[in-house]
Amino acid sequence: MGVTAPAGFTAAGVPAGLKSTGKNDVVLVRNLGPDFAAAGVFTSNRVAAAPVKWSRQVLADGRIDAVLLNSGGANACTGAEGFGNTHRSAEYVADLLKVSAGDVAVASTGLIGQQLPMDKLLPGIAAAAAALAGTQDASDQAAAGIMTTDSVSKQVSRVVGDSTTGQVIIGGMAKGAGMLAPALATMLVVLTTDAALTSEQLDAALRSATAMSFDRADSDGCMSTNDTVLLLASGASGITPDAAEFTAALTDACQELAARLIDDAEGAEHTIAIRTFNAATEADALEVSKAVSRSNLVKTAVFGKDPNWGRVLSEVGTTQAAFEPDELNVAINGVWVCKNGGVGEDRSLVSLEDRNVTIDIDLNAGTAQATVLTNDLTHDYVHENSAYSS
Amino acid sequence: MGVTAPAGFTAAGVPAGLKSTGKNDVVLVRNLGPDFAAAGVFTSNRVAAAPVKWSRQVLADGRIDAVLLNSGGANACTGAEGFGNTHRSAEYVADLLKVSAGDVAVASTGLIGQQLPMDKLLPGIAAAAAALAGTQDASDQAAAGIMTTDSVSKQVSRVVGDSTTGQVIIGGMAKGAGMLAPALATMLVVLTTDAALTSEQLDAALRSATAMSFDRADSDGCMSTNDTVLLLASGASGITPDAAEFTAALTDACQELAARLIDDAEGAEHTIAIRTFNAATEADALEVSKAVSRSNLVKTAVFGKDPNWGRVLSEVGTTQAAFEPDELNVAINGVWVCKNGGVGEDRSLVSLEDRNVTIDIDLNAGTAQATVLTNDLTHDYVHENSAYSS
Repeated sequence: MGVTAPAGFTAAGVPAGLKSTGKNDVVLVRNLGPDFAAAGVFTSNRVAAAPVKWSRQVLADGRIDAVLLNSGGANACTGAEGFGNTHRSAEYVADLLKVSAGDVAVASTGLIGQQLPMDKLLPGIAAAAAALAGTQDASDQAAAGIMTTDSVSKQVSRVVGDSTTGQVIIGGMAKGAGMLAPALATMLVVLTTDAALTSEQLDAALRSATAMSFDRADSDGCMSTNDTVLLLASGASGITPDAAEFTAALTDACQELAARLIDDAEGAEHTIAIRTFNAATEADALEVSKAVSRSNLVKTAVFGKDPNWGRVLSEVGTTQAAFEPDELNVAINGVWVCKNGGVGEDRSLVSLEDRNVTIDIDLNAGTAQATVLTNDLTHDYVHENSAYSS
Repeated sequence: MGVTAPAGFTAAGVPAGLKSTGKNDVVLVRNLGPDFAAAGVFTSNRVAAAPVKWSRQVLADGRIDAVLLNSGGANACTGAEGFGNTHRSAEYVADLLKVSAGDVAVASTGLIGQQLPMDKLLPGIAAAAAALAGTQDASDQAAAGIMTTDSVSKQVSRVVGDSTTGQVIIGGMAKGAGMLAPALATMLVVLTTDAALTSEQLDAALRSATAMSFDRADSDGCMSTNDTVLLLASGASGITPDAAEFTAALTDACQELAARLIDDAEGAEHTIAIRTFNAATEADALEVSKAVSRSNLVKTAVFGKDPNWGRVLSEVGTTQAAFEPDELNVAINGVWVCKNGGVGEDRSLVSLEDRNVTIDIDLNAGTAQATVLTNDLTHDYVHENSAYSS
């Protein structure tokens, strides 16, 4: 489980005092090779943090030897000094690990607009470098070190292939508190594998996997300045897996991590899967699911255990997707409360007691579909709203 | 003050039992002429309520003799039966007032997906028709009758022109609870004037006024199925005002009503004016102000009295507006906490104790500007989020 699950990786997480809690906040993940291929996806926010700008440069040649991560500070909107600090951190890692600074990716999470305390970060890096290990404990310490308001750490592993073809392993860790997350719910993910794949192959697999996982998890509609997903391949297994099989396993791993991010969203009481189907195109289905996932009124209704399908329909009506209003059907937890754009089955049949909620939206316009994960909006904030119609 | 302020209008509001509270819920506004010119703007939601569909038809000839409004039910997603009920209500008003049903506009607000109780609505219409009067009290009763979760009724009046040119009066009323409003914060507005203007002139003035007022008030990003803004002109003054002067006064009246809708948003503790300036185009400025107004993280920060400019910058970064990240400046209540995309003046200088908050965003890319009004997100829901960095 985690980033040390595949052969060829070590990791460490240590407390360096960046977080006032004294918990782990500086993390290293090292690829021992023999391959050092890598791929990454980053936030599309035009106000990108210094470590995002740095890591994009690092990835230009498709190689990463080590990843430095920290919680306790996003290093975003910190100007030339902030970029200089990221650069200096990477140089320091490179010196300690005897690698090139241009092959050290950096990812940060925390408050925007504050310089990182380099007097704490550099000793933390030294401690982490000294603690690097391939054990499960090292993986656990690393996963803990990237947490901010996460209540649990998130790690994952998958096996690709069988005894005939040979097996490769995918490991990973993620942080992100979803809804209401401070400093914009930065999502940091590091995935590792001992498969022998080129950076181009990794890039194709990672883009496909993230499009079907993290890109379809939307807790509060707010895009971070720091989102980073990295995939490192050591080639230590000596096996090059079937591309489709590898991509499927990577997608599955990313979907598990995405679901766990949404499950751990601060204050959330429900995880909501919004599936739009019978759409003319997948883009239509995604537009509708995303629109509904961003509706505070839908989210407050779910918190209030109110199967308020009118709010779903109203949100569908704001999209450009192909549909006729009087041909829309909506089910909440399997009960078709809206049929043909109007009242359907008895809404009192819907139970919203369970953590997991499904909203199915039938556009009646084709055969495509897409699912987006989100959570409810909770607490007294929504009291008036959620109590109104129930 | 209100819809009876201009000459040529009567109004009434009565309790008919549509609302469980026993408060006024059926309203009539009648134009006594001699002119019956009118204009209207409606929700752009593709899932439009029956009264919206009906009133669009009524306005096709630019004439409205009377407006029937009700709270206690949106009559949205109610199918053929719902549209039939709107039609039947208009016919009933027409019979009572001896006008054509095709000149009776209808507007509704309340829960989506439920049929209106016609056994209560029709007697309510009869009572309202009998109570029609041109008094301030009648105007007050009408304004009260369209309230849902509004804590106060909203009325306005303006005078256009002077003793030389002759004066015309604009009156108006609005409802809408803004953030967290049940049944999608439906906004209903009726504006009246005794000016002698054609429906084309009214339409031009109304579109200009709403674009600069209601279109720039965004409490929770959710678009209603029922939003309706109507402007009726009786011509009773016999005066045709200067078009620019009339439009300016109408815009001013609409801006006052829009501000009062945002001020009355459920649970809100702050009204936030987000002004983007030095933009390349007005569209850029509007895109940025709207994006920031829809950020739950910015809104929770304001609730927590936390001048978290990083969240503002991060939201700006999601737009397509012309700017360079390191040329952005942000002021919160006049303190330039962000300069050149990084740390600016001391954030502890910002006071967020007052109800009214201004966020100024300098794109440094031109000379255009736009302001959007919104409110904060409040209550325990935001506790963790708002407490994080303060």
